[in-house]
Amino acid sequence: MNYPSQLIEDVVNELSKFPGIGKKSALRMVLHLLKKPESEVVKLGESVINLRKLINYCKRCHNVSDGDFCRICSSLKRNQQQLCVVEDLRDVMAIENTSQYNGIYHILGGVISPINGIGPDELNFVSLINRVQNEKISELVLALSATPEGDTTAFYISKKLNGSKVQISTISRGIAIGGELEYADEITLGRSILARIPYKT
Amino acid sequence: MNYPSQLIEDVVNELSKFPGIGKKSALRMVLHLLKKPESEVVKLGESVINLRKLINYCKRCHNVSDGDFCRICSSLKRNQQQLCVVEDLRDVMAIENTSQYNGIYHILGGVISPINGIGPDELNFVSLINRVQNEKISELVLALSATPEGDTTAFYISKKLNGSKVQISTISRGIAIGGELEYADEITLGRSILARIPYKT
Repeated sequence: MNYPSQLIEDVVNELSKFPGIGKKSALRMVLHLLKKPESEVVKLGESVINLRKLINYCKRCHNVSDGDFCRICSSLKRNQQQLCVVEDLRDVMAIENTSQYNGIYHILGGVISPINGIGPDELNFVSLINRVQNEKISELVLALSATPEGDTTAFYISKKLNGSKVQISTISRGIAIGGELEYADEITLGRSILARIPYKT
Repeated sequence: MNYPSQLIEDVVNELSKFPGIGKKSALRMVLHLLKKPESEVVKLGESVINLRKLINYCKRCHNVSDGDFCRICSSLKRNQQQLCVVEDLRDVMAIENTSQYNGIYHILGGVISPINGIGPDELNFVSLINRVQNEKISELVLALSATPEGDTTAFYISKKLNGSKVQISTISRGIAIGGELEYADEITLGRSILARIPYKT
């Protein structure tokens, strides 16, 4: 592709590094930028630079944060004995949106995935084990993806905490609310039969 | 949606102003930025700011340009009597990619669209008429979208140049190469029958 200006080519190349954005979408974004007032574009550019320069991570749970500790860890209303282990920030936001969980979090920063070169050393396991031992955690809720990588990570955590008294639970897997049985895949359906629960009225 | 940090919220809000990017995609982009080295993120932010601050528009055809005149207008190899009228930069790039056109361009900056509040005064018509009168243009090729707005714009240009000697042509409409008749819509098929051309072997 021949771009009419080096400046445009630079921005297209930078923007197309984002996941899910190719050269064509990047060019559309550039044309959008060119039509905007200069002040707005400068604001965007500066907010991107500030994000990376000023962002803090919570020293306790590794969530992003404006200060030393994140809003959730600092909140007096949260149950500080219930610890939910998640992969990244988006999972925290997804669980927070349900309003069904009142404990605190621990962000691993990913899941164990040898194929992508991510082993236990790349993830926040050491601080997790320390927290379980030092913070009087009574329940560890594993909220990891229902993938082989998520299962491996859950297994690794349970092995590491073998001698500990903490109760480990995992979010339930099964047929999604509103889902019809005939369209469910066999593995999900099979697991949901094996992991059946008492019927409550 | 509750964001864990004001910095993240700012960038998500800025990024979700792009066409086709919602809050969820913007958040994915932010997480991608957080995982990148600081130098790369600064480079992205600065290239966005530079784009808007340093970009020039060709004084002749309104194409974006690094200098006063764009690469195409400055080229001695181009036919300076053949002028192709397009909506925006992407159309120039699309036509250039075909390698089938060797003339110069004029970018209108849009098409007449009363519903979006775009009338003739918002577009580069005055400079187009001036160029046709002063630059010895022999042929004006209208390469506008096959939409009511594109047709209106083409009609407006032809009316404006009523007394002029310039020959006005438009890119052909019809069944796309590789397209099957049974899947073509009726209007395209109807027009392609009316606008049939002599068969060449």
